[in-house]
Amino acid sequence: MLLEDFQLNFENIISEYKQVIDRELLNVYDDGPDNIREPIYHILKGGKRLRPILCKLVCLCCGADQESANVPATSIELLHNFTLIHDDIMDNDILRHGRATIHHKWDDSIAILSGDAMLAIALIRLGVIKENKSIILEKFNNALIQVSEGQALDLQFQNMHNISEVEYLNMVDKKTGYMIGLSSEIGAIISNVKYDIQLKFKEYGMLIGRAFQIQDDLLEITSNQEQMGKSLESDFLLNKKTYLTVKANSLNRDIVNNYIEISKNDFNLAFSLYKKFLEDNGIVEESNILINSITESARNILEEINLDTGYLNKFTDLILNRNS
Amino acid sequence: MLLEDFQLNFENIISEYKQVIDRELLNVYDDGPDNIREPIYHILKGGKRLRPILCKLVCLCCGADQESANVPATSIELLHNFTLIHDDIMDNDILRHGRATIHHKWDDSIAILSGDAMLAIALIRLGVIKENKSIILEKFNNALIQVSEGQALDLQFQNMHNISEVEYLNMVDKKTGYMIGLSSEIGAIISNVKYDIQLKFKEYGMLIGRAFQIQDDLLEITSNQEQMGKSLESDFLLNKKTYLTVKANSLNRDIVNNYIEISKNDFNLAFSLYKKFLEDNGIVEESNILINSITESARNILEEINLDTGYLNKFTDLILNRNS
Repeated sequence: MLLEDFQLNFENIISEYKQVIDRELLNVYDDGPDNIREPIYHILKGGKRLRPILCKLVCLCCGADQESANVPATSIELLHNFTLIHDDIMDNDILRHGRATIHHKWDDSIAILSGDAMLAIALIRLGVIKENKSIILEKFNNALIQVSEGQALDLQFQNMHNISEVEYLNMVDKKTGYMIGLSSEIGAIISNVKYDIQLKFKEYGMLIGRAFQIQDDLLEITSNQEQMGKSLESDFLLNKKTYLTVKANSLNRDIVNNYIEISKNDFNLAFSLYKKFLEDNGIVEESNILINSITESARNILEEINLDTGYLNKFTDLILNRNS
Repeated sequence: MLLEDFQLNFENIISEYKQVIDRELLNVYDDGPDNIREPIYHILKGGKRLRPILCKLVCLCCGADQESANVPATSIELLHNFTLIHDDIMDNDILRHGRATIHHKWDDSIAILSGDAMLAIALIRLGVIKENKSIILEKFNNALIQVSEGQALDLQFQNMHNISEVEYLNMVDKKTGYMIGLSSEIGAIISNVKYDIQLKFKEYGMLIGRAFQIQDDLLEITSNQEQMGKSLESDFLLNKKTYLTVKANSLNRDIVNNYIEISKNDFNLAFSLYKKFLEDNGIVEESNILINSITESARNILEEINLDTGYLNKFTDLILNRNS
């Protein structure tokens, strides 16, 4: 295939997969009380569907029927949205995918319950799976504890100084990596590839998840609120640890706290001082180097899998070369 | 067996089952971040373990090995506690089983995450089940959506007038009945009794769950805060619908709102006026009659099951003849 044809083909596939998932999500919860059904459909309108797309791409790569991935892929997107709803309450974020968050548009109680119900829907839908149901359910339940622990660490770190890079990466793997690893792993499981290949797909997903989160941390500095479709202030004011704050604190243990203090009076001033510090001290560059190195490891794992992983390499480009 | 011996024997069994479950709960989450592990163990210290005890009693009644019920019974208690944690945030309750609620002792974020993790632990533990794992997982996931919907309706009804008895009972079945029905049903499933017997056990559990909730509504009027181990003010001020408020509103559509208005200045005065109204209009008596009639139906179902259900009849007495 010519390079341009390959690119075009890839874009068509991504677009088609997104449509399939969007369509599935239109009918996930048609009964049930209005006060949770409406918020559930509200949040499901937004999002790039990266996780279910990855799940289906792994099936494609393994030569399996991607239709069979629709159910677990949709449940992965629901599980992901459950975490977003609860996360937005905790961070007091008012924007998600450029739309009002549930707790902001409704209230905390509605958001807590909508999240709980979203999770229930994700799990119940897996009930129709024919093959490997038990193992897939176990993988989902494990993802649930991992992501809860990742968010707990994220919260814990807000009140801590001197988080090491290792502690930060452990938190990121749990909060973000595990779910993207799950998306890739489930694709491999339903394709019935050998166990060691399943593990490689999981590892690939976890690595791009880790790179994705550090990229997210970096975009908070280099992008802007409109492009990101979410508010940047809250994370900073909460003293959330990012790869960049961890690095900044390792150079000067008071630096981030100082900027947070300034930001209480003038967020824009504090944020531009903070950006300048990160650039002057090479932390932006260092972040880019780390993202590239993790991505490289992810690509190496794909090479070890004896399958045509061309589209997955394109997917890696897609989610890492983004500006929002 | 003599009647006194039977009673003594029953009490010993209940006490032993509670100890078994308490012991299981001591080690459900030994790893994981401190900021969710500590709240999880904090809430697990309280509670009567009625649901897991019921699950094990059904096994005993079916002649099955009750040891095999320990895993699902413990998960039922964890699932129940997950709902309590999130419920307490929504109702802004500060006491649960006579102890500070998680969101009150820590904060909302910690409570949301501890609940999510508690649910994950409940589901993960089911992974070790050998027989009927898939069906048990499905029953759990269904209970999760039912209880979320029950709580959503509970919330929705707070802003509504003229909730009918049917709407109220539907809400109660989802919020309370389904989980007690699940406890009984799971006991029957792991005992491998026939499907129609499983259904009868489920129905028995749902009925005593319904009676249990109406009894709870009634105890708010006839008991006191110390005995209940939870605050009574919040539910009333939130205009939560109980069997008694539904009945009171059906006699006079403004009555409960009037008392709520008064209670904003003087809770004790409003609450005693409200009690007097309920007694004078026969609503307390009517509630007792309904509880007895539902309990009678539950006992009739037990009779239809061709097994020695003596201990389950004692259990029915136990949870309905309580004063807290």
